[in-house]
Amino acid sequence: MDEVYTFSEAAKLHLTKNELGGKGYGLVEMTKIGLPVPPGIIITTRMCNKYFEEKKLWKSIKEKILIKMKEIERETGKKFGSGENTLLVSVRSGAPLSMPGMLDTVLNLGINDRIASSIAKRYGEKFAYDTYRRFLQLFGSIVLKVDKSLFDNVVEEEKKRENVDESGLSASALKRIVEKFKAIIKEKTGKEVEQDPYKQLFMAVAAIFDSWWNKRAIEYRRIYNIPDTMGTAVNIVSMVYGNLNERSGTGVAFTRDPSTGEKKIFAEVLMNAQGEDVVSGKRTPMPIEELKAKMPNVYNELVRTCDKLEKYFKDMQDIEFTIEDGKFYMLQTRNGKRSAQAALRIAIDMVNEGLINEKEALLRIEPEQLEMLLHKQVDKKLAGEPIATGLPASPGAAFGKVIFDIDKAIDAKKRGENVILVRNETTPDDIRGIAVSDGILTSKGGMTSHAAVVTRGMGKPCVVGSGINIYGNSFSSNNVVINEGDIITIDGSEGKVYKGSIPLIEPKLGGDIAKIMKWADKYRRLGIRANADTPEMVKKAIENGAEGIGLARTERMFNSKDRLELVRKMVLASSDEERRKYLEMIKPLQKNDFKEMFKLAAGKPITIRLIDMPLHEFLPKLEELIHEVDELRCEKKEDEAKEKEKIISKVMELKEDNPMMGQRGVRLGIIYTDIYSMQVEAILEAAIELAKEGIKVKPEIMISQVAIANELKRAKEIVMNTAESVFKRMHKRIEFKFGTMIETPRAALTGNELAKYADFFSFGTNDLTQATFAFSRDDVEAKFIPFYLENKILPSDPFAQLDASGVGMLIKLCADEGKQANKTLEVGVCGEHGGDPSSIEFFNSAKIDYVSMSPTRIPIARLAAARAAISGERKSTV
Amino acid sequence: MDEVYTFSEAAKLHLTKNELGGKGYGLVEMTKIGLPVPPGIIITTRMCNKYFEEKKLWKSIKEKILIKMKEIERETGKKFGSGENTLLVSVRSGAPLSMPGMLDTVLNLGINDRIASSIAKRYGEKFAYDTYRRFLQLFGSIVLKVDKSLFDNVVEEEKKRENVDESGLSASALKRIVEKFKAIIKEKTGKEVEQDPYKQLFMAVAAIFDSWWNKRAIEYRRIYNIPDTMGTAVNIVSMVYGNLNERSGTGVAFTRDPSTGEKKIFAEVLMNAQGEDVVSGKRTPMPIEELKAKMPNVYNELVRTCDKLEKYFKDMQDIEFTIEDGKFYMLQTRNGKRSAQAALRIAIDMVNEGLINEKEALLRIEPEQLEMLLHKQVDKKLAGEPIATGLPASPGAAFGKVIFDIDKAIDAKKRGENVILVRNETTPDDIRGIAVSDGILTSKGGMTSHAAVVTRGMGKPCVVGSGINIYGNSFSSNNVVINEGDIITIDGSEGKVYKGSIPLIEPKLGGDIAKIMKWADKYRRLGIRANADTPEMVKKAIENGAEGIGLARTERMFNSKDRLELVRKMVLASSDEERRKYLEMIKPLQKNDFKEMFKLAAGKPITIRLIDMPLHEFLPKLEELIHEVDELRCEKKEDEAKEKEKIISKVMELKEDNPMMGQRGVRLGIIYTDIYSMQVEAILEAAIELAKEGIKVKPEIMISQVAIANELKRAKEIVMNTAESVFKRMHKRIEFKFGTMIETPRAALTGNELAKYADFFSFGTNDLTQATFAFSRDDVEAKFIPFYLENKILPSDPFAQLDASGVGMLIKLCADEGKQANKTLEVGVCGEHGGDPSSIEFFNSAKIDYVSMSPTRIPIARLAAARAAISGERKSTV
Repeated sequence: MDEVYTFSEAAKLHLTKNELGGKGYGLVEMTKIGLPVPPGIIITTRMCNKYFEEKKLWKSIKEKILIKMKEIERETGKKFGSGENTLLVSVRSGAPLSMPGMLDTVLNLGINDRIASSIAKRYGEKFAYDTYRRFLQLFGSIVLKVDKSLFDNVVEEEKKRENVDESGLSASALKRIVEKFKAIIKEKTGKEVEQDPYKQLFMAVAAIFDSWWNKRAIEYRRIYNIPDTMGTAVNIVSMVYGNLNERSGTGVAFTRDPSTGEKKIFAEVLMNAQGEDVVSGKRTPMPIEELKAKMPNVYNELVRTCDKLEKYFKDMQDIEFTIEDGKFYMLQTRNGKRSAQAALRIAIDMVNEGLINEKEALLRIEPEQLEMLLHKQVDKKLAGEPIATGLPASPGAAFGKVIFDIDKAIDAKKRGENVILVRNETTPDDIRGIAVSDGILTSKGGMTSHAAVVTRGMGKPCVVGSGINIYGNSFSSNNVVINEGDIITIDGSEGKVYKGSIPLIEPKLGGDIAKIMKWADKYRRLGIRANADTPEMVKKAIENGAEGIGLARTERMFNSKDRLELVRKMVLASSDEERRKYLEMIKPLQKNDFKEMFKLAAGKPITIRLIDMPLHEFLPKLEELIHEVDELRCEKKEDEAKEKEKIISKVMELKEDNPMMGQRGVRLGIIYTDIYSMQVEAILEAAIELAKEGIKVKPEIMISQVAIANELKRAKEIVMNTAESVFKRMHKRIEFKFGTMIETPRAALTGNELAKYADFFSFGTNDLTQATFAFSRDDVEAKFIPFYLENKILPSDPFAQLDASGVGMLIKLCADEGKQANKTLEVGVCGEHGGDPSSIEFFNSAKIDYVSMSPTRIPIARLAAARAAISGERKSTV
Repeated sequence: MDEVYTFSEAAKLHLTKNELGGKGYGLVEMTKIGLPVPPGIIITTRMCNKYFEEKKLWKSIKEKILIKMKEIERETGKKFGSGENTLLVSVRSGAPLSMPGMLDTVLNLGINDRIASSIAKRYGEKFAYDTYRRFLQLFGSIVLKVDKSLFDNVVEEEKKRENVDESGLSASALKRIVEKFKAIIKEKTGKEVEQDPYKQLFMAVAAIFDSWWNKRAIEYRRIYNIPDTMGTAVNIVSMVYGNLNERSGTGVAFTRDPSTGEKKIFAEVLMNAQGEDVVSGKRTPMPIEELKAKMPNVYNELVRTCDKLEKYFKDMQDIEFTIEDGKFYMLQTRNGKRSAQAALRIAIDMVNEGLINEKEALLRIEPEQLEMLLHKQVDKKLAGEPIATGLPASPGAAFGKVIFDIDKAIDAKKRGENVILVRNETTPDDIRGIAVSDGILTSKGGMTSHAAVVTRGMGKPCVVGSGINIYGNSFSSNNVVINEGDIITIDGSEGKVYKGSIPLIEPKLGGDIAKIMKWADKYRRLGIRANADTPEMVKKAIENGAEGIGLARTERMFNSKDRLELVRKMVLASSDEERRKYLEMIKPLQKNDFKEMFKLAAGKPITIRLIDMPLHEFLPKLEELIHEVDELRCEKKEDEAKEKEKIISKVMELKEDNPMMGQRGVRLGIIYTDIYSMQVEAILEAAIELAKEGIKVKPEIMISQVAIANELKRAKEIVMNTAESVFKRMHKRIEFKFGTMIETPRAALTGNELAKYADFFSFGTNDLTQATFAFSRDDVEAKFIPFYLENKILPSDPFAQLDASGVGMLIKLCADEGKQANKTLEVGVCGEHGGDPSSIEFFNSAKIDYVSMSPTRIPIARLAAARAAISGERKSTV
């Protein structure tokens, strides 16, 4: 069936946002609740996919469009293609998920030479030719693919000639523009501009569908994981004219402040203009207070509309409206993008206002937004004077090298450098560069400009409209010149720009965040622990709400600078006795670390992973040693060379072709049993000494790299025997748990066997991902993961977001079988995925008891876990 | 229930070999068919396990044994513990699976001072005290754990004193021996020898059970994968005396020649001796012809018995018998161990004799035995004169370093050296050393000696009784002195020993092997292909019966010496163009290789794997380059050093921390697409050129390292696009298949997705095992796999025998899901496990279509596949 509906028809059917697209959905809903929406029709997203199958607009859909156009004519009382009481339309894209500025729109369609002169007779030449030139500009560039800048140049010329801004252009200037536009189109396409309004209409509909596959849209979908099959709807809406006269205008508004969340309308209005003029940031809009003063009725209608919309959609709305000769029209509404701070504020306020409940509030806050709030902030005490001040478009702070070019920004990021992308203004084509940069600074644009909207969505610091002066590879501001490659710091929360790198400080959890965390803890099922190797990290983890330490690596306790010398001697020991001697010297140091950590954890469990690294990683690099020996030889220092060669031969003996899969973890521990024993002694002695002082301790001892149940069995024997002798020696027993990481595919496949020897499993998703893909992270991440993402070989980086179909399958299998074999088995995740919201959703659905992540990510994980639990609940009741 | 039965009782119950043990089962079966077996009782293996639970013999079983002893007394008419008509018994171990010499046995039990003197009165002192000293010797060493050599020394002393062999010792010598034995026991145990026959009996039964856990038995079970829970039965058998007089004796026989398989009894008899004397090899036995001449009745009974046993057991038997004063008794029968050659011969003969059918015949031949026949043989034309000649105890030939010590042999093997273990004679304690050696040479012993039996079982070349003279770390023979570490060659098929390493030649398939292969091909389900990278290997593979080439690696075509220079230039190329130039130069060389291989395959499919290795493997090693640069610098050759540093920087760029999981296989191919394209062009151009000549070609193009379905999809695009352009250019299309290796766990987990893009899957079990365990084979195999096997952490080396519970699970899952998603999908295995019999059994049970292995292992695989199919059939009909 050809799905073409008028808004009023669609309002009666129960069509989804997926079918109507976001814009269409908003228009239909507003029609339903009686808001003043110009009549229009909608072609569904399903037709978009059909269009790509048919490769053109097919006959029957054209006929259907014609029929529905008659309905618009009836509703508006205007006539499409007629000189009298002309109906012009906008042809607008509208994808189900917001893709701001990515898809195309043509306005003022249906006009031609004849109609323009009729309109001129009725409304004056200025309005008629302004409308015609606007049509030509969009139709020319979007439908006919003529380079947009050619049109812009013509307008610039005329503006200069008359020394006015765009709204001030005279009728004759506009007529000249129209003629020049027509000439450009003729020259570039070899044809006159289409004069038949219906042909214009079908060409525009096809072009809007085609825009689904333009480069920047593809790029945007890749970044935001929007499926290609989603398609866009097309909305054909009767035009209302913000450029009709001085009592006309156009505006955008947020029903609350999108930056702070404050409950007050945040609007920007341009008089005598069409909507595109606001979005482009070319003219500076007038504040809402001015509108209130000038047109109180319109202002009041705006306020009433905002209120109605919020009550209906139960969320803050981002709207577009037009005033035609003093009459107010709604052109668009959608849930408004907002800063992280605003998201929290609005969610909490709406709970207080009774609009939504706590669960709904949690679903309103993206974990990524929360992350933004947890970004570092500029340390104001050390900041000094800013070199520029602009609008605080997206909060958070960052410093990095100034880069002006998208490709250079991408290259710099590949080299691992911090990047601040600096542009006059950004366009949808810049999306790749924005995605890789640490922060964005623009010279022009307002709070609703492209850069501001996009960076808020990404949770990246951004300062817009800073007025800096960019020329070539430098910019200047307040007499300071900054060259490409220089470091600056931007503060997106305050809109300030500083020279050099200003120290950044971590934010504290408090206020709105604390409230949201409280709600999150109420609804989440997953336990939250932290990966923490040092007392400082344990402290931070507990502050951030960790319920325990899920992974305390002991490697740092071996290779911190003050100990490396001892450890090297231990590794190079030529006999078991010698090795044991050095281990005895290392033990008190590790024991001290454990004591500090236990104290800080204050009775919360700490899962300590025994040594995981291969021994040779503690030794100097082979290449360096060879070079040193060569130099000694060259200097005829034969004795020293020989001495060093001994180390070389030990390094060679321990060297591995693939250390990631070599003698490490349990493969090391059950052969060099002294190391495990020493660590177990250090842990339990520390615990017992504290227990004797009355301090609660919950040690959990964890083995890594296990692939075979018998490895774990043997490791357990070593641990238990050591524990028994410590208990005997210290005349005190304490409880502790024993468990294993699951980080080899074979361990995951044999969870039922491993569960016999373990009190807990902890999925090491980093290594498990490595082995399951047979991707060495260090080797592949730079070399081909970017290529794989760009070419859609992978939907996302599996080291950042859990690969549900491969690695996830192993995790589910293992958690299931492990728990079946051992009813009291506790199952956690301690890989980096433990802190990734989409992975948390997966873990919530699998039989995982807790996730563990870096201390700074805990608040995000708490929120993500709550959201996963709430969504999961909803799914299961649907 | 306490399971203690007389042989006659057991013959009526349907007890299994698992319950009765091998020896007991033979005795019971022989009792059943009316052969002259001395009455006895049997305690089942289940009682062995109960014994280990109870940690002693419990009351009720002792009572049961007493009751059953009365039955023996009734059947024999003799009385246990009585001076008159005394019943003595042997207490024999008997495990369900043969563990020759590993478990203990006590003979002549029930004797004491009083009874010995009674026997002396009736049968003479010589017999009485020979019997008594034999009892003391075994009871002392086995039950009382007195060092055996103390007893041996006493016997040696007396032999010297009287200058006779053991059977010639005088009564007074034997009495002295008895007294000395008693003194030794008193001294070592602090107690007199137990005089109560029943107490002796219970002590012996317990000691036999205990022997299940002696060191050598544990070792043997580990090597042969015998479960610890199996346990041993205990047989208490009334003694018959081979040492009664000169009309008495003892012997062992094979019903056919165990070395050649010839249908004639192969026996060794010792007159006036007990069984242990034959097995120990201390005295040289008399040939069977002598028995025939001396005691024709006994000889005839032996022949009749052998015939009856073969007809009953339908297999060649290995028997023990005793002649007591001219009367023939059977003491043991079991299926005889045999050489590979004999196994084939006997199986074929028995089919011809109508004893068994072809399927049964195939089940009689262990693939490992066949492997032995396929071992290299000494090239007699180049062999020269042997330095020693002994008995051809186990066929096949090997050369290696002479080593005299078990631990040294193990160390040498760890260093990767070939080892010939040289010993006076071997004992069960040597089993570890035999297992690692390439061949065994002994000075003493016969065809039934320990070394001979064990090596035949293992399929290792062995020469026994060579009469070489071992002193310290050398041996001499025919005036040639061989020192430890010198190389010798042994020919186990001919019993010859040569100095140095003699060239070995591969055997041809023919005669018996050809017949067995024909049968195997008739019954196997699995297809058989070969891994072959060169035309020579393809030739060998086809000769050995391969139905195609399952894996042709193209790495050799890159890094053979004549091409490496070109390939290096290709890798070091600074632009795509330059790289393409070198690829164009490499292409004709690869194309030529493919043409030769296609010709030799003569229409059989060849699966060609496109480049798998990481590029840096084609470059010189970093350490070497650094050293070279250092040397150039030291010699002040700055310019050359700088030139070389450029290579260093390229090597550094390509270097990977874990190349096994780095940029290789498909991860290389879909980024450097020219390499894939070049290879596809070379393959298809070769194929088309041959096809134009009318030669049949079946190319199959295979991608490696795939982890993600989209990788395969993209690789397929490259391959198909290249193919299309080759077809167009050459004006001819040919059929070819496209498929993927499954060697990453993720590929195995997503078989359903991969199957969409593949005509075939081929499991690369080596890499799949690596990644599933996260064991880098090169790094771990030497470092801890031996430790893991010794400590039973692994039941077998997973790189040799497929890990069914981990890797096997992935294979089954993937084959199932792949075939479900693509009904015509062909699934093969091309890892080394493809040639391992026990792994083949697994593949037969999974949905695998063919296995591919090195050409030399094809016959073994054909047999193993047939056996797997036959066993599988039987299991499924049970």
